[in-house]
Amino acid sequence: NRRSSLSLDDYIAGIKNGDRTILSRAITLIESTKSSHRELAQNIIEQCLPEAGNSIRVGITGVPGVGKSTFIESMGNHILEEGHNLAVLAIDPSSMRSRGSILGDKTRMETLANHGNAFIRPSPTGGSLGGVARKTRETIYLCEAAGYDTIFIETVGVGQSETAVHSMVDFFLLLMLAGAGDELQGIKRGVMEMADAIAINKIDEASKKAVSQAVREYKNALHLYPEDQSGWRPEVTTCSAVTEKGIPEIWTLIQEYVRLTKDNGYFQDKRNRQAKHWMYDTISNRLREHFYENKAVQKQKDQIEQQVLNGEISSFKAAHQLLELYFKSK
Amino acid sequence: NRRSSLSLDDYIAGIKNGDRTILSRAITLIESTKSSHRELAQNIIEQCLPEAGNSIRVGITGVPGVGKSTFIESMGNHILEEGHNLAVLAIDPSSMRSRGSILGDKTRMETLANHGNAFIRPSPTGGSLGGVARKTRETIYLCEAAGYDTIFIETVGVGQSETAVHSMVDFFLLLMLAGAGDELQGIKRGVMEMADAIAINKIDEASKKAVSQAVREYKNALHLYPEDQSGWRPEVTTCSAVTEKGIPEIWTLIQEYVRLTKDNGYFQDKRNRQAKHWMYDTISNRLREHFYENKAVQKQKDQIEQQVLNGEISSFKAAHQLLELYFKSK
Repeated sequence: NRRSSLSLDDYIAGIKNGDRTILSRAITLIESTKSSHRELAQNIIEQCLPEAGNSIRVGITGVPGVGKSTFIESMGNHILEEGHNLAVLAIDPSSMRSRGSILGDKTRMETLANHGNAFIRPSPTGGSLGGVARKTRETIYLCEAAGYDTIFIETVGVGQSETAVHSMVDFFLLLMLAGAGDELQGIKRGVMEMADAIAINKIDEASKKAVSQAVREYKNALHLYPEDQSGWRPEVTTCSAVTEKGIPEIWTLIQEYVRLTKDNGYFQDKRNRQAKHWMYDTISNRLREHFYENKAVQKQKDQIEQQVLNGEISSFKAAHQLLELYFKSK
Repeated sequence: NRRSSLSLDDYIAGIKNGDRTILSRAITLIESTKSSHRELAQNIIEQCLPEAGNSIRVGITGVPGVGKSTFIESMGNHILEEGHNLAVLAIDPSSMRSRGSILGDKTRMETLANHGNAFIRPSPTGGSLGGVARKTRETIYLCEAAGYDTIFIETVGVGQSETAVHSMVDFFLLLMLAGAGDELQGIKRGVMEMADAIAINKIDEASKKAVSQAVREYKNALHLYPEDQSGWRPEVTTCSAVTEKGIPEIWTLIQEYVRLTKDNGYFQDKRNRQAKHWMYDTISNRLREHFYENKAVQKQKDQIEQQVLNGEISSFKAAHQLLELYFKSK
C-alpha cells in the first residue's frame, strides 16, 4: 500500500468532515480480512457510533432486469435535489463467486457518482453472505457519521441476501415488473412478506392493462399477510425510473412510513431488534476470529485440512482435533 | 418424553439393522437443540461414519410449482423397483419461519412413505439455514449407515439453500418448466451454474413447441458456463412425473455421471472438498455452543440482550461485554 497511513484521529476527523476519500479508505479497512487491520477498524466504528443512526435506511431489491440501478439513480437524483445526502451501498451475494460487483460498474449510476452529495460503494467481495452483510451494516454507521442522511442498500436476486438487508434497513422496497406473465414467480414468498412497499417499475414499457392487473395481483398477495405491529399497510405503487413518473411519490411514501413509525415507536423498536440480531452476529464472528488467530490452530490447520482433502480423516475428526488444540492452548 | 430411552449401542444396532423407528429417533436427537442431547448425538454420528459414504446423494431443486414432490415420488418408485433403498430428506428454509415443513405433509409422497425400502424425513425446523443444513448433512450419514444407497435431498425455492444442498450432494438436479414465458426468470444464475442436469418437468402439460424451445434455451444458458473439472457436460432433459415419461432416463443419466466421475476421481475429490467445508462449519458451530454454554455468559446474556432491545447500549458494546465475560472465565 503506497498511500500514507492514517491514524485513528485522521480517520474520524475525515469521516466527520464528510471526506469521501477517507470514508472510502475506512470502509476498505472494515472490509479487510487482515487481522492487523481489525483493531483500527473496530475503533473507527466505535467512534462513529455516537454520530450514527440519523438516517433513513432503505433496502431496495428485485430480480435482475427489474431496473434497480436506473431506479436508484432516478430516486437518488430526486432526493439530492431536495437537499439530502445519499449513500448507496450494495449486498451482492453473486459477487462472492465472481469477485465482481453489481455496483462495481459505476457508469451505471453516472449522475449519482458525479454528484457531490452522493456516495456510491460497491458490494464487499469475497467471504460468506454473513460476512458481506456484517461489513455493509458497519459501513452504514460510517456513512451516517459522515453526514449521509439517506442510505440505499441495494441487493440483487431473490434469495437469502434480502433477509440480511431486511435486518439492517428501516424500509424495504421491492421492485417488480408488470406483465411478466406469472407475476409472482421468481420472487420468494418470504421476500414479498418483508416488503413495506412494492413498486411496479418500467410502466412506460407495459400496457395500462398489464400495469393495473399487476397492481391488483400484488395488492391481493400482500393482503394474505397478517398486518404487522408497525401499523403500516404495505402499498403497491407504480413508476418509471426512465420517465421519473411515480418516483417522487415513492419517496413521499417512504417519508410517510418513517413519520408513522417514529410516532408510534415502531421505528426505534425495529432498530433495537436489529441491534439484537447484530449483537449475536458480532459474537459469532469474534469467536471465529479468536479461533483462527490461535497459534496452535494456525500451526496445524493446513495440515489437518489437507488430510480431509485427501480423504484421510472425516470432517468431524478434523474439526475436533483443531478444537481440542484451541481449547487446550488457552 | 414417555418413550424409553435408548443407549448408544441400542441406537447403533438399530440403525445398522435398518430399523426406521430407531433411525428416526436418532435423527430427532441430532435435530435437538438441547445441549444434554449433544454428546449422544455426536457419538451416534461418529459410530455411523465408518458405515457411511456408500450412497449416491442427489440434490433436487426448483421453484415452487415445478412439481418436486411428484417428481421425487415418480423417480423414487422407479429406483425402488430396481431394488434400491431410498431416503428422502429436505432442506426447507421457509420452514424456519413457519415451523412447518414441505415434506411434513407426507401424503404428498404417499406411495414412497408406505414403501418398506423408503425413508422420508421432513426438513428440520427452526434455527438458521446453516443449522438446518448441518443437521441434514449429519442425517445423510445415519441414513447411509442404515443401508440407504440412494439419498434425495429436496430443497425449495431459489435462494441460498441450494448452495447448502450443493455442498452435500454428488449430483444436483434442477427442475424447470417449459413455456413459463421468461424461462430464466425466477432461478438464480448461481443455481443454474450448480446444476449437473436440468429436467424440464410437466411436459404433458406443455406444447411440443414450448418444450423444445425450453430445451434449446436451457442448453444455450448452460453453455455459457465454463466446463468444470468433472469432465461432465450438464444435460438438459425432459420428463413428466405424472406419466413417468423420461423418468428412467434421468436416473440413467445420474448413474452415468457417477460412473464417469468415479472413474476420473472427481467423485471422491468433490466429497473431500465438501468435507473440508463441513469441517469449518463444525468448528464454527462448536465455538458458538461452547460460548452459550458458558455459565458467566448465560448469567448475563438475557440482561444484556434486554439493554440492546431497550436501545441502552449498541450491539457492539453488548457483544464485547459478553465476549469479555467468556474469555475471562476460562
